[in-house]
Amino acid sequence: MVEAGTTGLDVFGGDKSVVAMRVNGATCDLAAELSDGDRLEPVLDTSDEGLAIIRHSAAHVTAQALQEIFPQARLGIGPPIADGFYYDFKTDPLTPEDLKAIEKKMQAIIKQRQRFVRRVVTTEQALAEEADEPFKVELITDKDRPGAQDGSQVEVGGAELTMYDNIRRDGTVAWKDLCRGPHVPHTGYIRAVALTRTSAAYWRGDQARDTLQRVYGTAWASREDLKAYQERMAEAARRDHRRLGAELDLFSFPEEIGPGLVVFHPKGGILRHEIESYVIGRHLEAGFDVVHTPEISKGGLFHTSGHLPYYADTMFPPMAVDEERDADGNVTRAGQDYYLKAMNCPMHNLIYRSRGRSYRELPLRFFEMGRDYRYEKSGVVHGLTRMRGFTQDDSHTYCTPEQAEEEITNQIAFFLSILEAFGLDDFYLELSTRDDDGSHKDKFIGSDEDWQEATRVLERACRATGLQLVPDPGGAAFYGPKVSVQVKDAIGRTWQMSTIQYDFNQPERFDLEYTAPDGSRRRPVMIHSAKLGSVERFIGVLTEHYAGSFPAWLSPVQVVAIPVAGEFTDYLTDVAARLKARGVRVEVDDSDDRMQKKIRNATRQKVPFMLIAGETDRAAGAVSFRFRDGSQLNGVAVDEAIDRIVGHIVSRANEDPTAPRQASAGE
Amino acid sequence: MVEAGTTGLDVFGGDKSVVAMRVNGATCDLAAELSDGDRLEPVLDTSDEGLAIIRHSAAHVTAQALQEIFPQARLGIGPPIADGFYYDFKTDPLTPEDLKAIEKKMQAIIKQRQRFVRRVVTTEQALAEEADEPFKVELITDKDRPGAQDGSQVEVGGAELTMYDNIRRDGTVAWKDLCRGPHVPHTGYIRAVALTRTSAAYWRGDQARDTLQRVYGTAWASREDLKAYQERMAEAARRDHRRLGAELDLFSFPEEIGPGLVVFHPKGGILRHEIESYVIGRHLEAGFDVVHTPEISKGGLFHTSGHLPYYADTMFPPMAVDEERDADGNVTRAGQDYYLKAMNCPMHNLIYRSRGRSYRELPLRFFEMGRDYRYEKSGVVHGLTRMRGFTQDDSHTYCTPEQAEEEITNQIAFFLSILEAFGLDDFYLELSTRDDDGSHKDKFIGSDEDWQEATRVLERACRATGLQLVPDPGGAAFYGPKVSVQVKDAIGRTWQMSTIQYDFNQPERFDLEYTAPDGSRRRPVMIHSAKLGSVERFIGVLTEHYAGSFPAWLSPVQVVAIPVAGEFTDYLTDVAARLKARGVRVEVDDSDDRMQKKIRNATRQKVPFMLIAGETDRAAGAVSFRFRDGSQLNGVAVDEAIDRIVGHIVSRANEDPTAPRQASAGE
Repeated sequence: MVEAGTTGLDVFGGDKSVVAMRVNGATCDLAAELSDGDRLEPVLDTSDEGLAIIRHSAAHVTAQALQEIFPQARLGIGPPIADGFYYDFKTDPLTPEDLKAIEKKMQAIIKQRQRFVRRVVTTEQALAEEADEPFKVELITDKDRPGAQDGSQVEVGGAELTMYDNIRRDGTVAWKDLCRGPHVPHTGYIRAVALTRTSAAYWRGDQARDTLQRVYGTAWASREDLKAYQERMAEAARRDHRRLGAELDLFSFPEEIGPGLVVFHPKGGILRHEIESYVIGRHLEAGFDVVHTPEISKGGLFHTSGHLPYYADTMFPPMAVDEERDADGNVTRAGQDYYLKAMNCPMHNLIYRSRGRSYRELPLRFFEMGRDYRYEKSGVVHGLTRMRGFTQDDSHTYCTPEQAEEEITNQIAFFLSILEAFGLDDFYLELSTRDDDGSHKDKFIGSDEDWQEATRVLERACRATGLQLVPDPGGAAFYGPKVSVQVKDAIGRTWQMSTIQYDFNQPERFDLEYTAPDGSRRRPVMIHSAKLGSVERFIGVLTEHYAGSFPAWLSPVQVVAIPVAGEFTDYLTDVAARLKARGVRVEVDDSDDRMQKKIRNATRQKVPFMLIAGETDRAAGAVSFRFRDGSQLNGVAVDEAIDRIVGHIVSRANEDPTAPRQASAGE
Repeated sequence: MVEAGTTGLDVFGGDKSVVAMRVNGATCDLAAELSDGDRLEPVLDTSDEGLAIIRHSAAHVTAQALQEIFPQARLGIGPPIADGFYYDFKTDPLTPEDLKAIEKKMQAIIKQRQRFVRRVVTTEQALAEEADEPFKVELITDKDRPGAQDGSQVEVGGAELTMYDNIRRDGTVAWKDLCRGPHVPHTGYIRAVALTRTSAAYWRGDQARDTLQRVYGTAWASREDLKAYQERMAEAARRDHRRLGAELDLFSFPEEIGPGLVVFHPKGGILRHEIESYVIGRHLEAGFDVVHTPEISKGGLFHTSGHLPYYADTMFPPMAVDEERDADGNVTRAGQDYYLKAMNCPMHNLIYRSRGRSYRELPLRFFEMGRDYRYEKSGVVHGLTRMRGFTQDDSHTYCTPEQAEEEITNQIAFFLSILEAFGLDDFYLELSTRDDDGSHKDKFIGSDEDWQEATRVLERACRATGLQLVPDPGGAAFYGPKVSVQVKDAIGRTWQMSTIQYDFNQPERFDLEYTAPDGSRRRPVMIHSAKLGSVERFIGVLTEHYAGSFPAWLSPVQVVAIPVAGEFTDYLTDVAARLKARGVRVEVDDSDDRMQKKIRNATRQKVPFMLIAGETDRAAGAVSFRFRDGSQLNGVAVDEAIDRIVGHIVSRANEDPTAPRQASAGE
């Protein structure tokens, strides 16, 4: 029996780590009144749901503070997002100083512990109260229009319209917002908040509508959590491959070529060449055949594969090839639509069916470093990790249905060993299937039986690895289920890398066949697999994983020779020539800089081996090592030094070489 | 003093190797009357001019024979071409049987020694005589129209209209044709003629006009020459890379993808991979840097480089990227034109200027296996030798003007050594410059001084090789002169392979600079160079050069192990595993075929090493070699056999291994 008027605050209010509650499973404000028999659960400030509520409340406080400073600013929407929140405003662009002022004002509001008070209103009331807020008026009006469910509904969804008032201790209303809630009890619950940046955004994401200013922020349950997050962000920024790509002169994204398209400079080019050569070599060893296909094709091919209806938005627009015009520019012969390929499988299928195939040839594994183009909105492309043009280390394996499970099991082991070779060894598997409820069958082609069989085969192959397996219903490709490897990098972020897909659909569409031992014509199964995923993206991830300090075998420059003074340049040039003859990428720094500057330069360029020599070393026919961790190993005979460097590179060790402790101490 | 009425026949008629004559430098029929003081020269049947006359006369006889069989056939034109002639007809498509019948009729006409008699006619006469030949009427009418000079004028050019009558010994006219001549004295001079094939052709090459049937033939001064030509053609057909590409399962040109676009099958893919890896490795050794650029770019880049106005017809049509449309399909935001790249230099220039450059870095050599697309009419593409999509082993070197000559000299030596590595060692150089008379200055950009300096540098570098140097005025690229290597293949045909170009223009257009020792900003020179030219074309040429019997290091399958009977399969499988472990591409033929069939199959697949084993070999721990020349070497210990094979492959020898004479005889 609860007394009438009892609220969640009476039950949970003493524990400031409870920010909201679930009543019979539905989340609501702690201020909500309880009824007899209600099932109550606290929503904790460190849970995902609790953090989302704190961030949503922080977004309100951000808007309140901004409108106190810029009263003419008009409100858009302000939802929580991963790790934070944003709020959109129709106002002039904001400066970093503006953000600081808003933050200061927010702290004042937080100190005042203004209560978030929920109030149900009619549409008429809401329209009257928000008459000065045109975007809110639009949301209120849309709410009554059926079918108006889009992202902006986050603020007004649900059966009834509600306003939230921010109420001071003296009972006056400090601010109010049309909002579904729930919110924390009062602003004092927002214990750790920071604004991070601003950007422009279109109202409702529509370029034809108003341009708004979006203010981003982050909020956490505690100052410690906020600090840890800020440190993670700073570390990620230090490792940002776009920044390191420029600093280490690896690659760039020339404006003249276009967004999402990269050029690799010499140092990035050799890194890429090493990675590709290694991966191609591993494929050849493992029984894959290298094939090669063009970057363009007539559109009919992609209609055959089914990509064009299912995938059209992701492809580049067509070129009208072989179009003919008369002298006046009128088309006298229609062109044929050619497309940049977004995937390699349709062309590999043409190679498969270029002649008859026997069961004796299967499994047949076609591998290609295929250059693919996918259309992404220019605002979405991001460095090497989301591109318009990229290279897939792509394979398509054709086998009998009976061979599929063993083949997939082997290929999963194969691609894990490739990732490990690059020093990525912390991973789990994800199994992407159709939606469980079959509600999106129009997104997937093929019979229920085919999907079940394919999913069963993939799941068994995954289980065989002993790795953690996470389900991902609804994440499959349209033509079949998929396994992907999620790799954790050095700072704990997860990246999707290798994928393997079971495809029962394209063999059908391309009418692929093989002759079985009994002479009958059978349909092979097709297995798509990419190991690095995209070579470019892999290079981006590897750059961030190693913070640019690539393993020696991948380092663009493996050795820099640094003479203590100019007179030792010839001596080191000879050593460098011997290293070069053994295939080592070595440079002699014969610039006019002083030695310490040269060491700083090589350190900044993250070169794994510095070889230093002065009089003592030259007299002894020796060199001194300086490693990337700053440790030093003096007086190593030149022969031994060369063997040591070559041995480390050839071993493809991913750990950095370093001097033994005592040697370093004796420096 | 010649008597009135004296003709060339009186002078040269006794020598049947004289088919026409030059009178005061102008070529005419032997039947022409001579005047006092005329300077006379014979035109011999083996000279280029003599052969063209024989072939032109043979074209007439072809048309005469065809009209005797198909009187309703209407005449187009019938000129001599390289190695032969054709004649176009408006008639039904011709069968091989039709060709045989025409040939038979031609032989009858030739036997009759019908005289070719020239007759000047007025336009009215000509129109009256050719009233039944609508295409001839068009030619006659066009002749009087100024500016109507096109390829078809070959039949009617010159100041006056002439008819040629074919006159039987009894003086009757057997046939006649509107023709400029000259011709041989009578059909008996056509001593060696054969029809070769038919094809469809548009009247005047215009798709909007009538479709005609083109009959091709060849004619020579003697039966021996004809036979030698037919043998050369048969040999070329045997070596045709398109045919060998299919027979050896190397590559194909799928209709679904489009003309001029190739896919490499596993066997062609590994061949290509070996070639590319070797060439990339040589570049790295020689101090080139590997870079990497996308296949597409915004059009502005190609305007900056100057390719778009000068080169637009050779590029693929643009794609309208980032175009936006409303729900009704109206464009609401214009797209940006993106193009497939036709060349890599503009992108390499962007890498060059991605940061400041110092004279210390020069020469800077950027190398890329660049995938380029050039628009060729679909009727012109031909196998791997003329494609729409291809890969250039392309380098761009940036150096100071002072470094250019040494750099070019070294790079010429470099690319000759690469060609030699593939067994191509019979070549000469060609120096392509602007037109001597400067008449096409609009085709070339840059000052006279720049052209002279660049040409001088290239010529000196060429002279340094000691190779034959052939001038090619007018053949330069629009931005600078060029040296190319012309390579002779195994059957004496010449192919243009490596090129090197001196470019003073793009550094200007891209505003490329380096800092000189004195701190001033200077303009580098740019050197374009491709060694294989196009990788695909090189593979085509190599296939024909070796007639598919690639050197062992390039062979898709290097060893086929053939058991004498099924019981020896395990033994050879072990040998094969040891070969594979040493990187050899080996197959064991464990099919149900008999041994002789397996040998025939491996021979047809042109595999360099067959390893055969039966009881004797197994008992001795040995195998028997069978080489591509059919020679055999029995009882070689397995260890030695493996060393021999690996040694031959690693040496990259281009000569075929074979058994010593005595061993072969002792078989």
